[in-house]
Amino acid sequence: MARPIGVGVVGCGYWGPNLVRNFAQQGNAEVLGVCDARLERATKVGRDNHVAVATDSIEELIALAGLDLVVIATPSATHFELAKRAITAGKHVLVMKPITTRSDHAEELVDLADRQGVVLAVDHTFVYTGAVRKMRELVENGSLGDVYYIDSVRINLGLFQSDVNVVWDLAPHDVSIIDYVMGGQEAESVATIGGCHAGSRHENIAYVTIRYGPDVLAHIHVNWLAPAKVRRTIIGGSKSMVIYDDMEASEKLKIYDKGVSISPASSAADVYSQMVQYRSGDMRAPRIDSREALATEAEHLLECIRTGAQPNADGRAGLRVVRILEAAQASIDAGSNFVTVRDTRDVPAWRLESRRPTSIA
Amino acid sequence: MARPIGVGVVGCGYWGPNLVRNFAQQGNAEVLGVCDARLERATKVGRDNHVAVATDSIEELIALAGLDLVVIATPSATHFELAKRAITAGKHVLVMKPITTRSDHAEELVDLADRQGVVLAVDHTFVYTGAVRKMRELVENGSLGDVYYIDSVRINLGLFQSDVNVVWDLAPHDVSIIDYVMGGQEAESVATIGGCHAGSRHENIAYVTIRYGPDVLAHIHVNWLAPAKVRRTIIGGSKSMVIYDDMEASEKLKIYDKGVSISPASSAADVYSQMVQYRSGDMRAPRIDSREALATEAEHLLECIRTGAQPNADGRAGLRVVRILEAAQASIDAGSNFVTVRDTRDVPAWRLESRRPTSIA
Amino acid sequence: MARPIGVGVVGCGYWGPNLVRNFAQQGNAEVLGVCDARLERATKVGRDNHVAVATDSIEELIALAGLDLVVIATPSATHFELAKRAITAGKHVLVMKPITTRSDHAEELVDLADRQGVVLAVDHTFVYTGAVRKMRELVENGSLGDVYYIDSVRINLGLFQSDVNVVWDLAPHDVSIIDYVMGGQEAESVATIGGCHAGSRHENIAYVTIRYGPDVLAHIHVNWLAPAKVRRTIIGGSKSMVIYDDMEASEKLKIYDKGVSISPASSAADVYSQMVQYRSGDMRAPRIDSREALATEAEHLLECIRTGAQPNADGRAGLRVVRILEAAQASIDAGSNFVTVRDTRDVPAWRLESRRPTSIA
Amino acid sequence: MARPIGVGVVGCGYWGPNLVRNFAQQGNAEVLGVCDARLERATKVGRDNHVAVATDSIEELIALAGLDLVVIATPSATHFELAKRAITAGKHVLVMKPITTRSDHAEELVDLADRQGVVLAVDHTFVYTGAVRKMRELVENGSLGDVYYIDSVRINLGLFQSDVNVVWDLAPHDVSIIDYVMGGQEAESVATIGGCHAGSRHENIAYVTIRYGPDVLAHIHVNWLAPAKVRRTIIGGSKSMVIYDDMEASEKLKIYDKGVSISPASSAADVYSQMVQYRSGDMRAPRIDSREALATEAEHLLECIRTGAQPNADGRAGLRVVRILEAAQASIDAGSNFVTVRDTRDVPAWRLESRRPTSIA
Repeated sequence: MARPIGVGVVGCGYWGPNLVRNFAQQGNAEVLGVCDARLERATKVGRDNHVAVATDSIEELIALAGLDLVVIATPSATHFELAKRAITAGKHVLVMKPITTRSDHAEELVDLADRQGVVLAVDHTFVYTGAVRKMRELVENGSLGDVYYIDSVRINLGLFQSDVNVVWDLAPHDVSIIDYVMGGQEAESVATIGGCHAGSRHENIAYVTIRYGPDVLAHIHVNWLAPAKVRRTIIGGSKSMVIYDDMEASEKLKIYDKGVSISPASSAADVYSQMVQYRSGDMRAPRIDSREALATEAEHLLECIRTGAQPNADGRAGLRVVRILEAAQASIDAGSNFVTVRDTRDVPAWRLESRRPTSIA
Repeated sequence: MARPIGVGVVGCGYWGPNLVRNFAQQGNAEVLGVCDARLERATKVGRDNHVAVATDSIEELIALAGLDLVVIATPSATHFELAKRAITAGKHVLVMKPITTRSDHAEELVDLADRQGVVLAVDHTFVYTGAVRKMRELVENGSLGDVYYIDSVRINLGLFQSDVNVVWDLAPHDVSIIDYVMGGQEAESVATIGGCHAGSRHENIAYVTIRYGPDVLAHIHVNWLAPAKVRRTIIGGSKSMVIYDDMEASEKLKIYDKGVSISPASSAADVYSQMVQYRSGDMRAPRIDSREALATEAEHLLECIRTGAQPNADGRAGLRVVRILEAAQASIDAGSNFVTVRDTRDVPAWRLESRRPTSIA
Repeated sequence: MARPIGVGVVGCGYWGPNLVRNFAQQGNAEVLGVCDARLERATKVGRDNHVAVATDSIEELIALAGLDLVVIATPSATHFELAKRAITAGKHVLVMKPITTRSDHAEELVDLADRQGVVLAVDHTFVYTGAVRKMRELVENGSLGDVYYIDSVRINLGLFQSDVNVVWDLAPHDVSIIDYVMGGQEAESVATIGGCHAGSRHENIAYVTIRYGPDVLAHIHVNWLAPAKVRRTIIGGSKSMVIYDDMEASEKLKIYDKGVSISPASSAADVYSQMVQYRSGDMRAPRIDSREALATEAEHLLECIRTGAQPNADGRAGLRVVRILEAAQASIDAGSNFVTVRDTRDVPAWRLESRRPTSIA
Repeated sequence: MARPIGVGVVGCGYWGPNLVRNFAQQGNAEVLGVCDARLERATKVGRDNHVAVATDSIEELIALAGLDLVVIATPSATHFELAKRAITAGKHVLVMKPITTRSDHAEELVDLADRQGVVLAVDHTFVYTGAVRKMRELVENGSLGDVYYIDSVRINLGLFQSDVNVVWDLAPHDVSIIDYVMGGQEAESVATIGGCHAGSRHENIAYVTIRYGPDVLAHIHVNWLAPAKVRRTIIGGSKSMVIYDDMEASEKLKIYDKGVSISPASSAADVYSQMVQYRSGDMRAPRIDSREALATEAEHLLECIRTGAQPNADGRAGLRVVRILEAAQASIDAGSNFVTVRDTRDVPAWRLESRRPTSIA
């Protein structure tokens, strides 16, 4: 492809400018236009990044000559409509997380992108960090052995969101990390326990448990009301174990050659202690690619567009994550019992209403 | 009381010798005898601590002239029978945690001790640490405001127990800390999610959630299969928050002057961001009494025996903890749904069988 | 002053763009021009920040209409000539650290600025961080009592500089922090021990000790060859002590209510242990202003220019720091003995040569 | 040797009981007697450890039938006289650190032990920890490459000693670690900077630098007046680097595959950046033997006595450490200049006086 890939970014709030900057820095791409319902934000971001067109009209953006990729960085409730419009126009699309707020919408986008033959990607940023890619690699190449559990904590004194709870705000990070590490395996069921405090109607603390088959347990603690910032994922495997601590300045990922195995007793007379074997060896912190995740993601996506390959975080990954979030929400609404992930497709209509786009760019 | 309080210790395994040592070091107590089903262990512990009598007979121990207090440090399944025997003989009793393995047994001991007019205490050791006492104080005097949640993590590459799961092994620590911090308030319901790995039939990882009324959530993560040792309790309150990290060499307790409050909007036109108030002030690590918890506990118990006061961790505290553990187990058995704490009294008979004493000292 | 203060920035390498950005963001200042010997760097930085003039001529920059302040962000060897030219032209000047590479040059600049009636400031960035300002405050208001020692460690696997050693590269940070905390008190003497490794002719590890009077010891460990990044300053005082750990994400500053005092024995018969008193109380991490230091510095400097006040890091602070660095270098050259700070004015001529400007912007 | 090695311990203060306990637990040794100038201390330690003889007479102890090894755990000023007496009587000897307070005394003991054919060992405890043995191994097998520097920090709010400064109290640990890691190489020169605070006549903070040849720099920071406990040794090598942090609960030793090398420029035209090569690879925390150092030491010493092998920390190691401490003291007395290690043999007579034994057991 001789000419650079033409990029348009919708949404110039918190995250949009980072996307503009990262795509602008790619050698083989050009940001042709930026769009925001608040024109002055689009104008500022456009000017700061030397982008030719700043507009408040999504139609104008999509119609730009040479535009190949639409990046959607608006509030989640607007993702579906905007992505649908861009895909329908034959554009490749990158959507911020979560890809949509309903799984049926995500399914529709995936189908549509398939039919249109365009790339649909979701900004599961962490999937493009060196640490998470290394964890996936360790699972894939068998270094961890069988995965027993994944325990993920993401807590902080965080900004309360006015329109979503902590599950929809923070857990997409953890769920997308877990989904990626598990190689895209479908989750079976989800249970979520939440609490509302400090006068809020939305959960500000939640514990989400995801079952992948009978043996693999993933557990997420998300919390906007914690006094200290913790971002830590532990994976326990049969051969070794991993701690990924994103708050560490270096050595974010530590691999422990530790484990326990219990052999079935060959006879009732076996002494118990003979059957348990502990292993406690070295710890290793591999060198991790410390490049900004967003730069890796932009480069990877442009490569996929050129070659037709599937991105690491494609529409299907986005869909799997939304299904889990939806099941998590359904579990909260159903007294915290486990909810089968597949059962969650037909969500009540009022939920759609409550998440209706409030400002389409 | 002119003469020293006479103490007898049953069980000379892992924890027993610490108890013997600590009571022996109290000025106003004397360890008169030690007892273990394996006589050679009793003999060694007795000799090391200059105790006059070492025996394998519980009757002989209880019958010692001048004996006031029986300390029971045997496997939990034997607690009920041994404690009952000692209380019936009019002795004060200190039992290791959990006080019993069934709540009806704990109730029976509490009633019996009341009738006999003796002190019944349980070794909830952490309740006697400087850090946990300080947390109780902060809740009691209102420094934390309303308690929103308590999050407790106790994970390690731990010794697999042959006969109990990780909930019965590790969670008693967390549950007794939570019970003490909550001032003995009765829990409402418990849900537990567990996983069995590495070939074991017992849960080696579990997430226990305890509801105290609609607003207070306590959550415990216990795990024998973690690569690093974490022992950390966070309390989130409306006025301030606390992190208790038992792995810190110093500054185990940190109090954060942090919080969020959301005022109800006075009108629909209120911008959301005007209603949320964040507070992020100093952090303070108060000086903590670093005395060995067991020494504090022994001194406190002897004082209670002399004065007739209730120990901080009395039989009723032991009972409340067992009720929660029982509900946690019932929840595991019932698909992890929330189980009402009061509903758990009539546990199936087989569970009693499986926990029958295997070696009464 | 009705019109904004006109700013020109010389040097568009590593640090220059940050200065341009920070001054551009001040409401009452305007960056009128940027200058670099490599015109393309000036052009890029100018374009990115919407600066009207980009030039490779220092004369052109200084001659810009409305220019009040010249910010010098070039290699240290060029500071003297450039600052002299700007001050002579009646401009206020901010110079990066170290202010010059010779103390006689720094003296000349200070004198010249006094005569011209302009503000001369040096970019001792750390002096404008919340943590260092808090340390100064604690010393000033007597909270620490008498300062006993300051111990500062700044080590890393750092970029080897081709033309200076680790003392001139890293220690200016520590020396300027120490100078500020000590309230600008003149140091008495300096001893430095250094080592050259990995094939370099310049010291890559050095220990610098500064004596302030007989009782106050400041010690700096700078190192380009350390496996981990440490940036930590400890201040020991008679009343309390401080640890400032810049690698902490939060709670960078911890104040310990700890101390020891020894009373003179009133008689030979006094038991030693009666004379020593230890105090070990709370630790407190005060809330620290987390604003970017450079923003605080820019605002403060503009305020000083408007009001005629002396900046916290003025030319005299720059001079004191260079005198200490010069003494540190002289000590290395003299077998690591203590060198009186005042003795170091007449440095050998070859040192000037070796530090002669190689590229004046 | 069929019969167990007979051990006598002199000095029942702080450290003595640990020695008694550790030798008592060795299968092939028997503690025959304990001795202390304060008979009641000897009696208590003897009773607690089932030792037959407790005495306040060193002659009586040495004369015990079957006694092979005398362990000296008295104040350092008494080591020489006591060790001399025991060696003269043909006994093997283990002396606490520092072996003596004068290097000529240490030399005399080494010579005497050689003539008598007995083992003379010194309790450089850290040399028997898993972490320090691993560091020695990494240097010996070339994993670290050339050693560039060793930086050791041992600070705390420590107990002020009435009769020695912080160099003689704490630095023996660091010096013995460094000596062991350096494979017993003789140090060349030592410079020490100290400060006296809080009313003490003795240094409570000191920086000791030891030169091993022109290229290897060892630096020690010891401090009784620090608000937090730090015990950390860094070794920088040409191939890799090590951090040994004794305050870590696990992973005390971390090995970093990091380094820098600078190639000599082949021509003046070489761009500098082409000559520097950075390497930043994995970090590894090897599994460390976590056995109590004293147990390892006791076992090792008994083995040496049986086989005639030299202990890892023998009299010569003790002598090398005392020579360095003596040079460190001489440097303090001489304005902190570097003092050649060999020059320190004839120390002034008053120093001997001031360190005269105050209580010979």
